[in-house]
Amino acid sequence: MNTIRLALAQINPVVGDLEGNVELIGDLIDKVDHCDLAVFGEMSLTGYPLEDLVLKPGFIADNQSALKTLASMSGNCALVIGFADSDGINVYNSIAICHQGEIIGSYRKQNLPNVEVFDEVRNFSPGSDPLNLFSIGGTSIGFVICEDLWVPNGPVEMLVEGGAQLIVATNGSPFHQGKQQEREILVNEIARKSEIPIAYVNLVGGQDELVFDGGSFITDSSGEIVLRLPSFYESVAVSDIFVDQRKKVENFFPVIDVSPNRDHEGELKPSIAPVLENIEELYLALVTATRDYVLKSGFKNVCLGLSGGIDSALVAAIASDSLGSENVTAVMMPSRYSSDHSLIDAEQLVENIGISSINFPISQIHSVFSEQWKRNLDDEITGITDENLQSRIRGVLLMAFANQHDWLVLTTGNKSEAAVGYSTLYGDTAGAYAVIKDVYKTKVYELARWRNETGESEVIPISIINKPPSAELRPDQRDDQSLPPYEILDPLLESYIEGDRTRAELIEDGFDAEMVDKIVQLVDRSEYKRRQNPPGVRVTQKGFGRDRRLPLINRYRG
Amino acid sequence: MNTIRLALAQINPVVGDLEGNVELIGDLIDKVDHCDLAVFGEMSLTGYPLEDLVLKPGFIADNQSALKTLASMSGNCALVIGFADSDGINVYNSIAICHQGEIIGSYRKQNLPNVEVFDEVRNFSPGSDPLNLFSIGGTSIGFVICEDLWVPNGPVEMLVEGGAQLIVATNGSPFHQGKQQEREILVNEIARKSEIPIAYVNLVGGQDELVFDGGSFITDSSGEIVLRLPSFYESVAVSDIFVDQRKKVENFFPVIDVSPNRDHEGELKPSIAPVLENIEELYLALVTATRDYVLKSGFKNVCLGLSGGIDSALVAAIASDSLGSENVTAVMMPSRYSSDHSLIDAEQLVENIGISSINFPISQIHSVFSEQWKRNLDDEITGITDENLQSRIRGVLLMAFANQHDWLVLTTGNKSEAAVGYSTLYGDTAGAYAVIKDVYKTKVYELARWRNETGESEVIPISIINKPPSAELRPDQRDDQSLPPYEILDPLLESYIEGDRTRAELIEDGFDAEMVDKIVQLVDRSEYKRRQNPPGVRVTQKGFGRDRRLPLINRYRG
Repeated sequence: MNTIRLALAQINPVVGDLEGNVELIGDLIDKVDHCDLAVFGEMSLTGYPLEDLVLKPGFIADNQSALKTLASMSGNCALVIGFADSDGINVYNSIAICHQGEIIGSYRKQNLPNVEVFDEVRNFSPGSDPLNLFSIGGTSIGFVICEDLWVPNGPVEMLVEGGAQLIVATNGSPFHQGKQQEREILVNEIARKSEIPIAYVNLVGGQDELVFDGGSFITDSSGEIVLRLPSFYESVAVSDIFVDQRKKVENFFPVIDVSPNRDHEGELKPSIAPVLENIEELYLALVTATRDYVLKSGFKNVCLGLSGGIDSALVAAIASDSLGSENVTAVMMPSRYSSDHSLIDAEQLVENIGISSINFPISQIHSVFSEQWKRNLDDEITGITDENLQSRIRGVLLMAFANQHDWLVLTTGNKSEAAVGYSTLYGDTAGAYAVIKDVYKTKVYELARWRNETGESEVIPISIINKPPSAELRPDQRDDQSLPPYEILDPLLESYIEGDRTRAELIEDGFDAEMVDKIVQLVDRSEYKRRQNPPGVRVTQKGFGRDRRLPLINRYRG
Repeated sequence: MNTIRLALAQINPVVGDLEGNVELIGDLIDKVDHCDLAVFGEMSLTGYPLEDLVLKPGFIADNQSALKTLASMSGNCALVIGFADSDGINVYNSIAICHQGEIIGSYRKQNLPNVEVFDEVRNFSPGSDPLNLFSIGGTSIGFVICEDLWVPNGPVEMLVEGGAQLIVATNGSPFHQGKQQEREILVNEIARKSEIPIAYVNLVGGQDELVFDGGSFITDSSGEIVLRLPSFYESVAVSDIFVDQRKKVENFFPVIDVSPNRDHEGELKPSIAPVLENIEELYLALVTATRDYVLKSGFKNVCLGLSGGIDSALVAAIASDSLGSENVTAVMMPSRYSSDHSLIDAEQLVENIGISSINFPISQIHSVFSEQWKRNLDDEITGITDENLQSRIRGVLLMAFANQHDWLVLTTGNKSEAAVGYSTLYGDTAGAYAVIKDVYKTKVYELARWRNETGESEVIPISIINKPPSAELRPDQRDDQSLPPYEILDPLLESYIEGDRTRAELIEDGFDAEMVDKIVQLVDRSEYKRRQNPPGVRVTQKGFGRDRRLPLINRYRG
C-alpha cells in the first residue's frame, strides 16, 4: 500500500489568454508544493477548445514558450498541464509533466473526437508515441487525455497491463443534462475492471456555446467514488489517495522517474461533494455560461427585453444570479398589444430581483413606421410584417441601449421557439448571448418553479408562470393558436432534433401525422434563422449551432 | 488503341432533393444511351455537401432507394452516380456503377477531407474495400472520388499499376479564385506520370456558402487537356476518347465486366471550353451562387438597400445578372447625412440596369427615435449609437419589404468591412445572403470596372467608382477617417486572415506596427458580428464562416 498526495485542480482558464492562464496556474504552484502531483484539465494552459487558433503557427509557438515559463516555476510537486504540442509539422492535444523546473515528459492525445461539438481531427494530429509510465511519489502512473480513457481499444488497458497503479485522465468534458452520472458510471466501470484507481480532472466554466461543469472525481480500485469536486465551481482538492501494490504485474513500459516516495505531513482525507439534482445543475449551467460569456468578453453589464412572459423572466433571474442584480437592466417596451398584466408582472419581477428597469413604449415609433409606409407606398403594413416590425423596433432599441451604455444584450428565446422559428430575426433574436436557447419551453417552466422554491421568497411572480404564453404582437394572440401545447410539442421536437428521426418514423412512434408534417416543416424552414442567432450555451445532447450542422438549402422532407 | 464514348455530365443537383435529382439525372439517361459511360459528379444523387443530413438514418435509407430507382432506369450506357452508401453501421461517400437496370459495382471514398470548409470525417467513414477495375466498352477503368485522385498515397497509383487504362474521378470541388488552374496543373501531372488519361467530373452550382464551378475536363496520357466543359454552367459533353493499349501491365485487380467494346456511330471529337480570366470567373461565381441560393430557397425576387456607394451598386448588378432585372428591387433610404450625389448615382444605376426602386427616406423615423429617447430618458443618442440606429432603421425597413412582398434581402457588405467590423449588426448586415462578403474592397472596384467594360454600355455609374467611399452616417464621414486606404488594408487583411500570420510576423513582413496593432484588434473583436452575419459565397482560400472557426471568447492578441 502506497499513498500519493494528489491535487486535482479544477480551473477556469480563458481561451487564448496564455498570460492569464500562466498566472492562474502559477498562483496554485506554491499551494500544492507539498503534494506529489497536481493535475490540471485538458488544454489548461491555452483554454479549450481552441478551434482554428491551432492553425496559427505563431500561437503554437507562444503556447510552447508559456509552457516553459510554467515548467520553470514547478517545484517538488509534479504538475500536469494541458497544452498544444508540436513537432514542427503536426500539432497535438497534449499534456506536459513538469517537475523541479523542467518538462520531464509529455503525452499526446490519441483519440480525437470529431463528432457533435468537436472538430479535433480538423485541428490536431493523433498521438502515436510509445506509452510511458511515470513514477511519482512512488506510484506508477499512466496519463491519458479525455477520449483516451473510455474509447474502446484506447491506451488505458495497455497502461494497466503494463504496470500502471493509477490512471490520471485530464478532461475538457462539456456539460449536458445528466452528464456527471454518465461520466461516473463509465469511469467507475473502467476502474472496477482495471482494479486500479482513476483520477478524472475536468475543466470548469463557460466558453462560447459550451460550459464545462467540473465535477472532477477519483474512483478507487473497486469502482467507488472517493472524492468529488463540486459542479460548476473552481476548486482545488488536495488529498491522500491509497494505491494498492497490485498483484505482481510485469511492468513492460519504460518508467520515467519523477519523484520519490515522500512522507506527508498529516493525513488529508478526500471528501465527496454531492451530485446535483438535474434541474439545479441545469440552472447552474445557465448561470455559469452566461457569467463567463459576459465577463470573459470584457463586459460587466447586460440588458434584456422584459415582456412579462416566462422566458424573459427566467433570463432576468439567471442574469441577476450570474452577474449581480446591480449589473442587469430590464427594458420594458410595451406595444399597443401588450396587456396591462404583462407590465405589472414585469414590474413585480424587477422588484423581486432588484434589477434596474427602463420603460420605453414603442407605440409611437410603431405608428410612424406604419404611417410613413402608408404615405410613401399607399400600402398597409399588416399580419406577420407588422408583428415582426414591433419585434424589430424592440431589437433596435435594445441595441441602442447596449451601444450607449456598453452593455451586452441577452436574448430570451427558448429552444422550442428556436426550433420552429417562432421568433423574429433582428427582433427578439438580436443580442450577444442567447441564455436559454437550448432549453425547451417545458423546462423553462420547471426552472422557474425550481428557482422560486430555492430562494427565500418568490422570484418569478406566479402569475407569469400560470398565464398562457403569448408573444402579444397582435390582439389576443396566444402561442397555442400557432403551435401544439408545449407538453406535446417538446417531446416531438426532441425526437426530431436530438433523435434524428424522420417524419415517417415520428408517425410510427405515435405522433399525430398532421402535427408531425407541420412541425418538421417549421423546423426545417427555420434553419436560416438559427444560423444568424446569437450563441448560447448547449445543455442538451444536441444543441443548435456547431452541434447540428444542417445545410440551409436542403429539400429533404423526410 | 481503343475508343470509349464518354459522357461527362456536369450537373447542378439540389441538396436533399432526392426526387428532383433522380429526375435531373433520369432525364439525361436516354440522351447518353449511345455512350459507353456517363459520369456524374460527387454525391450527384443527394447534392453536396450533405453535412449532418448524413447522420439521419432515414435519409440514408431514402437515398439508397432513390439509387435503385435510377439504376433500374439505366440501359446500354453505364452510369456513375454519387450517393451515400451504408453497410448498416457506417456511411460512405460513394459512387455506384449502374448498367442495364442493375447496380453492378461501387466505390467508397478513401480520403476524407476534414479541413477548410469540409467535415467529411465527421460525416463519413473512409472506404477500405479492395480495389476493382471496371471493364466498360473494352476499357479498364479505375474509379476514385475527389481527394482520392490527388492525395499522396491515394489509390490512383495502385489502380494504374493494377492495369487501369483510364482513371475517372467524380468531384465536388468548390471554387476559389484560380482554382481551375490549380486543378489542371495537379491532374495533368498525375496523368503524365501515370501515362493514362484522366476524366475529371465536377459539380456545378451554388450550395449555401460554396459554389461549384464545373470546369470538368479530360487530360490525355501525355498530360494535355483534350476536353473542357465551361465553368459555372450545367453541361453534358459526349466525346470519343482514345485510350492507349498500354505497355503490357500485369493486371492484378479483379475486373468487373460491365459492357463490351461497341462500334460507335460517327466520331465525336472533344472540344475545349476556354478557362476564364480571374475577374470574369469571380463575377460568374458571385452570380451563380446568388442565383442558386435564391432559387433553391424557393424565392424568386430580392431587394437590397442601395446607398449610392460602390458595394450596393455591384450587388445590384450581380443580382440583376443572376435573377433578371425584373426580379430585383433597390430600396433607397436616405438619411439626413446622405449626400445628394448618392441619390443621383443610385437612381442612375437603377436606370442603367432596369431594376425597380423604392425611395423611403428615414429622417422622420430617425427623429422619432431620438426625440422619444430624449423625452423618456433625458439623454441624447449620439456617436456610434446614432450611426448604428440609422443603419438598423434601414434593416427594419428592408425586412418589412421582404416580409410584405416575399422577397429575400441581399446584403451588400464586402470582406474588408466584415473583417474589421465596419458594419452594423441587424443594420446593413440584416438579410438572407451576403453576396460579396468574401470579396475584398479592392476587388469590388475591379469587378465594377470589369462589369462596365463587359456590357454594351456603362452599368455602374463612373462617379460611384470614383468617389471616396463613405458610410454617410454622420456629416462628411469617409472610410479613410477610420481605416487605412484599402490598397494598404486589403493585403494586410489577406495576410492575417488567409495567411494566419501573427501580429509579430506581420510587422516583420513590413507592415506598419501601429496599423497592424489596430487592424488585428479590429478583426479579432469583430468575430461576434461575423458569427451572426448571413451566409455568402466563399471565393477566396479562406472565407469567414465554416472555413475559419475561431472562438468568440479568445484573448490571444498575437
